[in-house]
Amino acid sequence: MRFFSDNAAPVHPAVFAAMQAADQVDTAYDGDSLSRGLDRAMSDLFGREVAALWVATGTAANSLALAALTPPYGGVICHRDAHIQNDECGAPEFYTHGAKLLLGDGPGAKLTTESAAAVADVIANDVHRVQPHALSITNATEYGCVYTPDEVVALGALARARGWGFHMDGARFANAIVHLGCTPAELTVGVDVLSFGFVKNGGLSAEVLVFFDPALADATKRRRKRAGHLLSKGRYLAAQVHAMLKDDLWLATARAANRAAATLAGAAGERLIHPVQANELFLRMTPAEAASLRGQGFDFYDWAEGEIRLVTHWASPEREVTALAQAIAAL
Amino acid sequence: MRFFSDNAAPVHPAVFAAMQAADQVDTAYDGDSLSRGLDRAMSDLFGREVAALWVATGTAANSLALAALTPPYGGVICHRDAHIQNDECGAPEFYTHGAKLLLGDGPGAKLTTESAAAVADVIANDVHRVQPHALSITNATEYGCVYTPDEVVALGALARARGWGFHMDGARFANAIVHLGCTPAELTVGVDVLSFGFVKNGGLSAEVLVFFDPALADATKRRRKRAGHLLSKGRYLAAQVHAMLKDDLWLATARAANRAAATLAGAAGERLIHPVQANELFLRMTPAEAASLRGQGFDFYDWAEGEIRLVTHWASPEREVTALAQAIAAL
Amino acid sequence: MRFFSDNAAPVHPAVFAAMQAADQVDTAYDGDSLSRGLDRAMSDLFGREVAALWVATGTAANSLALAALTPPYGGVICHRDAHIQNDECGAPEFYTHGAKLLLGDGPGAKLTTESAAAVADVIANDVHRVQPHALSITNATEYGCVYTPDEVVALGALARARGWGFHMDGARFANAIVHLGCTPAELTVGVDVLSFGFVKNGGLSAEVLVFFDPALADATKRRRKRAGHLLSKGRYLAAQVHAMLKDDLWLATARAANRAAATLAGAAGERLIHPVQANELFLRMTPAEAASLRGQGFDFYDWAEGEIRLVTHWASPEREVTALAQAIAAL
Amino acid sequence: MRFFSDNAAPVHPAVFAAMQAADQVDTAYDGDSLSRGLDRAMSDLFGREVAALWVATGTAANSLALAALTPPYGGVICHRDAHIQNDECGAPEFYTHGAKLLLGDGPGAKLTTESAAAVADVIANDVHRVQPHALSITNATEYGCVYTPDEVVALGALARARGWGFHMDGARFANAIVHLGCTPAELTVGVDVLSFGFVKNGGLSAEVLVFFDPALADATKRRRKRAGHLLSKGRYLAAQVHAMLKDDLWLATARAANRAAATLAGAAGERLIHPVQANELFLRMTPAEAASLRGQGFDFYDWAEGEIRLVTHWASPEREVTALAQAIAAL
Repeated sequence: MRFFSDNAAPVHPAVFAAMQAADQVDTAYDGDSLSRGLDRAMSDLFGREVAALWVATGTAANSLALAALTPPYGGVICHRDAHIQNDECGAPEFYTHGAKLLLGDGPGAKLTTESAAAVADVIANDVHRVQPHALSITNATEYGCVYTPDEVVALGALARARGWGFHMDGARFANAIVHLGCTPAELTVGVDVLSFGFVKNGGLSAEVLVFFDPALADATKRRRKRAGHLLSKGRYLAAQVHAMLKDDLWLATARAANRAAATLAGAAGERLIHPVQANELFLRMTPAEAASLRGQGFDFYDWAEGEIRLVTHWASPEREVTALAQAIAAL
Repeated sequence: MRFFSDNAAPVHPAVFAAMQAADQVDTAYDGDSLSRGLDRAMSDLFGREVAALWVATGTAANSLALAALTPPYGGVICHRDAHIQNDECGAPEFYTHGAKLLLGDGPGAKLTTESAAAVADVIANDVHRVQPHALSITNATEYGCVYTPDEVVALGALARARGWGFHMDGARFANAIVHLGCTPAELTVGVDVLSFGFVKNGGLSAEVLVFFDPALADATKRRRKRAGHLLSKGRYLAAQVHAMLKDDLWLATARAANRAAATLAGAAGERLIHPVQANELFLRMTPAEAASLRGQGFDFYDWAEGEIRLVTHWASPEREVTALAQAIAAL
Repeated sequence: MRFFSDNAAPVHPAVFAAMQAADQVDTAYDGDSLSRGLDRAMSDLFGREVAALWVATGTAANSLALAALTPPYGGVICHRDAHIQNDECGAPEFYTHGAKLLLGDGPGAKLTTESAAAVADVIANDVHRVQPHALSITNATEYGCVYTPDEVVALGALARARGWGFHMDGARFANAIVHLGCTPAELTVGVDVLSFGFVKNGGLSAEVLVFFDPALADATKRRRKRAGHLLSKGRYLAAQVHAMLKDDLWLATARAANRAAATLAGAAGERLIHPVQANELFLRMTPAEAASLRGQGFDFYDWAEGEIRLVTHWASPEREVTALAQAIAAL
Repeated sequence: MRFFSDNAAPVHPAVFAAMQAADQVDTAYDGDSLSRGLDRAMSDLFGREVAALWVATGTAANSLALAALTPPYGGVICHRDAHIQNDECGAPEFYTHGAKLLLGDGPGAKLTTESAAAVADVIANDVHRVQPHALSITNATEYGCVYTPDEVVALGALARARGWGFHMDGARFANAIVHLGCTPAELTVGVDVLSFGFVKNGGLSAEVLVFFDPALADATKRRRKRAGHLLSKGRYLAAQVHAMLKDDLWLATARAANRAAATLAGAAGERLIHPVQANELFLRMTPAEAASLRGQGFDFYDWAEGEIRLVTHWASPEREVTALAQAIAAL
């Protein structure tokens, strides 16, 4: 019973079906009608004209977004626990050609306007110091916490006031949306580029870069090719996205993942280190307790000392979730 | 009736079936058993211990290979018509951090030991000139021509004598193999890294980097992650490769593509600009003739002035191939 | 008697004197009054408002200029014999983060509007091909030939029409100016950035980047620092430039170099491979003849087979020049 | 009376004299005898065979050193107050092609073996995390504190045990040496590359990269050229270094700077934030007090709130130093 990662989840049957429906000779790269239809589909979803590009991984999406917003001699303000800082082997530095991540603080891996401004305010505006050019937040965060629309608006206003681009890593954007019950448009006010995740949420290999300023997409198309991310059979990626959007499947799968997390959260009680707002849980747990759970067949990551991480996903079997909840409660 | 590109071909049913067979919760990234089994599968195929990494595109494969062989201040000798020079939007320069492609000549986009050496021999060995660090050839070439094992051996010997790494872009390696009737091992003597293509040959989104010096793979694993090419659900890529290798499916699909090309070549006769040894044909053709073919429903790329390109693939319908052959003969 | 390179020349006494005059405690980096006075001095010289930055080498100047004009995924059209292509160990690729040099032709290492356009015209405007973003010419060229103001205007018009930036490598700009007898303004119509050389012409370690669009200089100031080219005692560089400009010393030194070259050219006659318009000469010469000259104490580089290169400079001793002219004539 | 920076100091007369002595036609770049003599001079100084390259700035020296020790996908452990992190506009990221600085702690901007190890110990050894490849310390530090030979030995042993390269930023190496009274060899045990500073200590534009593993220098020669740091008249840089080494001038100038700092330290007493071991002082001071000093003609930088920085140098006039000491004591 695996609670390691939503990355490990299977692919939703509707996604597979859509890929097979796309299985015929078509124009290569992103010249097929499914790929060309992404702009429209995402513009409809976000209620304004956007440009949308598929890529195969969240790391590529994030890094291309940052490269669109930050010159090589610039910096990106992000939380010190951000995925882009800790889990991408320096991909942002690779794609931006050496921009610097400037690290801020905040509980739950959330930046605040104060903490983001504080990062910038100690940087003298001279040529010796790397200047911030972008702000990047993750929603839901690496600790499963969610920025509200108001918080996003405030950070976006800060970014605009300072002349920074604003990127949202939405690897778990769907989980944030269903937690908040708001629209995608409401949660992206002021955002310049969104890494819109599908792989953790039922997809196979398609994420979408959403450019709220469509002009930013042009250079990114070249950067994408140059990074080897323009897959020759792109229609199979676009098909995944269309399948996830159809009938709001992406919300249904996120709801299932969040619901499973909520079940576990209910059992975890005081053990919870962060509020559970998406599909990740961080629990205080002694090594002996963790060993006990593992002895009962539950697998998961140790996080820091005395902490474990549990992740649910759209296909987490209810039986396994219930069993784990009971096992935690019984510790 | 589309003869644009093998990139546009559909996915072989066995590949889809294998992906669906892999559709269950498993370890993320390349920790699953299918991904971990690639080293073994490729070592068996090549008859020596190799390290094998999946990536999603040929561009990524080529660029990672070159980055493994060439420092940022080095150069890569390749044919001036090479895909890495003309069709990857500078991906080799991106991945190598600015290494220079040093361009050589030869008919059919094939380098010879003489032409490769000639590129190097005019470069003074001082710090002002970019020095060659690698040799890269494409087999089959961008013009559908094939290097023989003897030619590869000779180029490999040159590379070794000069201290260069040796890369083979095998986007159409399968087509070369079936043309030659040799083994993969026989066609890669002296090669350090092979970009082993599957996408043009029935796959969906999996190419394989084969490192004949397995030690070279370690840094590449980090470069792959850093480039956003470590897909989180890697098992679906590995499954494609295993499916293609099973019962030599990869040879069967390449044979079908080559056979279709041979049919067209038979009809093209004197129009052929290059010998047809794989699945690409370059024909002399007036604009009026090309228009006539298009009027009959055949689609393809104009190449240079007075030249067209035709590409067949594993699933080119026999009926369409026959019809095109007749139409060409009738021009 | 050394005719290797103007790089090897001594430093003009006025330059040394100016450096010593600057030898007192002052503001570090480029905060001193001499450095801050460069914009004014160059604006006066070029007759329009420019921004001017010192750097220590022509390679740094050229590369910073190209980085200001070309994104990492772009290309720079230049002559295949250009210094930036052959003699800077890939510095343009380093500074631009992997932009590609796109090579054109023309006698005397001079591009023409036709040859520059021809480089671009074969590049399909899609994401697979690196697109030209800048045009770079060298004046005087690597073969000692000079672009006239009309030629520069025409190339600038081409660049503007195509949306390219326009860079002039003026390592020997002074030699071109005195050959033409025109003003610096007349020779830079349409140019966006000039690498204005002083080191070959009497300076010690100061070249100047002249931005005819001053806005381009801001990012370059950061790139310069980031490249380690913001010297902490910048006043000693600025002092060199001011000394060279004072009373048109830079024209006097260039005139001396050109005059010495003309003397040699007069003796070389039919041996000349290119017209001698600056301070470099390329002569047809058998190995035996070259050996004879060397036996008489003259040192110089062999160029291609059967060719030698001679370079004069501001301080080439008249006696040595005369002796070499006689020796050549006597061959 | 300026106490801003040792970067602003004048050039020692012996340095100027040596540059003028070098003022004749010679081989360009680093082919002259002075440049070629650097290996020998530095090998003698350090008592073992080293390779030594001049560069024009400390930023270039540091960045080239890090690029020699760290691949693009690697990391460099340094103090969070290090010059390479805060004052070089991302030069290390530029030269290493995106390696990450991994920040550690310690009083006086000094890392300890514990704090350096702590940075590394939280980094899981997988492809998602940037792995440390080098350790970089500054001696004397950015706060004017000095690592002892024992401390360097301990950090070097840690680096070797972990497989990291070991870099020392010695912009103020001379100040550390004279403070400690040890030899250069004693202070560089276990160090792989030293950025040996001369510019702050009486030079004009020459720092030296000392490679204790001479093999590391070969690639760096190419990186230096590629970065535009191979000055064409290198003999004027080498001459500066030889002049500084002659009769231990570099120690005499550092002694003078340290002595001036000691004078100020004696007056500063309880105001001192860090021990004064080199030529920098950090003092607690109210804005009113700072204004008072400025009113008396003393110039210096505000550091953090309620803190000022004073820097002395080899040529700080004794009269001014004494006056400032009295003024501080009188506050």
